[in-house]
Amino acid sequence: MSETPFRDCLGGPGTPVPQPFLNNGTGHYDGGDTHNYNFITGNVPCYDFNDPVALNLIKEQVPVILKGADLVSSAMKWDLDYLSTHIGGGRFAVFIRNAEADRHALVQPQSSSNPQSQSVQPEPLHIFKYFDEKKLVALQDRSTFQSTMVRVEMTFQEFLKRFHGDRSQERVYLQQPLNNTVGPQIASDFIQFNWSWAAEHKREFNWGPLTSNLLLIGQKGNITPCHFDEQQNLFCPLRGRKRILLFNPENFPYLYPYPVHHPNDRQSQVNLDNPDYGRFPKFAMARGVQATVGPGEILYIPIHWWHHVINLDDTIAINFWHKGGGSAPVEYPLQARQKIAMVRNIEKMLLEALQDQNELKELLHWIVDGRY
Amino acid sequence: MSETPFRDCLGGPGTPVPQPFLNNGTGHYDGGDTHNYNFITGNVPCYDFNDPVALNLIKEQVPVILKGADLVSSAMKWDLDYLSTHIGGGRFAVFIRNAEADRHALVQPQSSSNPQSQSVQPEPLHIFKYFDEKKLVALQDRSTFQSTMVRVEMTFQEFLKRFHGDRSQERVYLQQPLNNTVGPQIASDFIQFNWSWAAEHKREFNWGPLTSNLLLIGQKGNITPCHFDEQQNLFCPLRGRKRILLFNPENFPYLYPYPVHHPNDRQSQVNLDNPDYGRFPKFAMARGVQATVGPGEILYIPIHWWHHVINLDDTIAINFWHKGGGSAPVEYPLQARQKIAMVRNIEKMLLEALQDQNELKELLHWIVDGRY
Ligand SMILES: [Zn+2]
Ligand SMILES: [Zn+2]
Repeated sequence: MSETPFRDCLGGPGTPVPQPFLNNGTGHYDGGDTHNYNFITGNVPCYDFNDPVALNLIKEQVPVILKGADLVSSAMKWDLDYLSTHIGGGRFAVFIRNAEADRHALVQPQSSSNPQSQSVQPEPLHIFKYFDEKKLVALQDRSTFQSTMVRVEMTFQEFLKRFHGDRSQERVYLQQPLNNTVGPQIASDFIQFNWSWAAEHKREFNWGPLTSNLLLIGQKGNITPCHFDEQQNLFCPLRGRKRILLFNPENFPYLYPYPVHHPNDRQSQVNLDNPDYGRFPKFAMARGVQATVGPGEILYIPIHWWHHVINLDDTIAINFWHKGGGSAPVEYPLQARQKIAMVRNIEKMLLEALQDQNELKELLHWIVDGRY
Repeated sequence: MSETPFRDCLGGPGTPVPQPFLNNGTGHYDGGDTHNYNFITGNVPCYDFNDPVALNLIKEQVPVILKGADLVSSAMKWDLDYLSTHIGGGRFAVFIRNAEADRHALVQPQSSSNPQSQSVQPEPLHIFKYFDEKKLVALQDRSTFQSTMVRVEMTFQEFLKRFHGDRSQERVYLQQPLNNTVGPQIASDFIQFNWSWAAEHKREFNWGPLTSNLLLIGQKGNITPCHFDEQQNLFCPLRGRKRILLFNPENFPYLYPYPVHHPNDRQSQVNLDNPDYGRFPKFAMARGVQATVGPGEILYIPIHWWHHVINLDDTIAINFWHKGGGSAPVEYPLQARQKIAMVRNIEKMLLEALQDQNELKELLHWIVDGRY
């Protein structure tokens, strides 16, 4: 039992506060390390790697930081040089934000009755808001989507060139699952991960199979804005620190996810740094916690928990994504994660039946307006 | 092919306009026969009983009046005396509205966040707004329901006494499916209905089985307010005239039906004689047609069509309710009736999954608010 779970953790008291490192002209953004969000009401607790209390929290699907972790020790030596030498000639998925592209994209959006179409300016250059390319192809009302981010596959050497370029003009974020194109040294490091710990605890946590180990390499200041994943995530920083804001699944209605068919599915429509309370009044009820994590620590991000990830430094990290596992026995009232799954299934099912995104919107208003 | 389908029909041009016969103090209600509703834009067409045009309209699920109908000729002699003599000693379902009960019910409703709770005064005495007793038992938020109408089973003689009572203090409406308690004379009349026409056309219309023949006996001025049924209805006046306002299923969102779990399921929340446009703004888009029908005519009321029924006289009528029949081949965009079925199923399914009416409301807002 840890009496002082925050001791020695990056996010704990006594941690030196780094200086602001980025100001993109909005006048209040300090790079995300010291900015005080009024919706953040606490810190994610931090425990030793094998503290039973921590492991029990994970089983309960509550975020926790594990310190002194021996899960990816063999990768603690990974830096850009080492990776450049050993990662091999495969191609890597890199997201690119480009100032020139933003200037070209600043066209007037078409008028639309869709809630999503009201603020479709490109985000600041350091925001990497994920979108699903298949859903973009299927999107009927294109006025509801505006992004200049592109996903490009490139060699690691090409990525490095861009990574070290002029960050006021272009920003990059590598996000690529490790695969069999890596060189023998990286493969050896990978094999030496603590797979027995992972296998044992996956069972204990009642998770499904491991789906991937995503390698993430991002620049200081890059932000992955607020979203949730449908997988359990053990997030392992290897280089640099990240500040992560987390909201439990009960915050679903306060964070206004895009419709399931929208390319930005699973992302919040709310800009956490400048919330539009007119469009998103219930965001005032959102309450989250935060974690600042660095090398040697692991952050558990539970399935369906919202997370907003700020790179406090240039960062290298790797994660372990697992499927959610068997469904819990049904107890009433239902848990938020069960309701989120229902909401998503309803949206998918109705769209499948109606075959038209505008009709989906219309039908949902048939159900709710003046009735519920 | 009828060139002048309105000729000789009650609702057609040239029909003498009866005098107003009821004013309940609201200052504008004229009994419903001459009141000009601005949302009524036309009349239901009227054809000869076996006009192929009419029969085709029925097949297309469009309301139509059939005149010179030979479907219930053997019942055209039914009046209160004849029924009193021959209908037998069975018990009949009678809805009762009572002024004394209304005075007792005028308590302050509890505060509630439910849309339905905002106007729960008892309706005027002549309004017979149906409710489902099982759903009333299951209703969680009782502040959303207020009715003084009771359903009492009684002999026909007991009904007649009330029928001829003081209508400013009590109003009654008999609505009872014909069953095997009727005396031999009524049974004989019933057997002489034109069952071969009914059977042949049920097949032609692609309807399901006959479910019941409802006998309706109501007082002049009694109103069955706007609702839809989930059955095909051939409505046959035997005595007295009715004025019926009809809205096609596309009007579903404009007429704001109560939630499916509410006792007033399938009823409009909108008071057609005094619409609350603040709560029900889309009612301004409602568009309907009207029919005035009397003995010897049949009004076809298609499944899912809204109808608001005003007794212009003391009335006796009988209907033929049929199940809807096989589902039409799926074509896009879906028809309103298919969407209504979806809406109802979604509400039922979600309530079944959540087991809580307030959670249903909450979840629907999770889906829609700020998103669709
Ligand atoms: Zn994520
Ligand atoms: Zn009806």
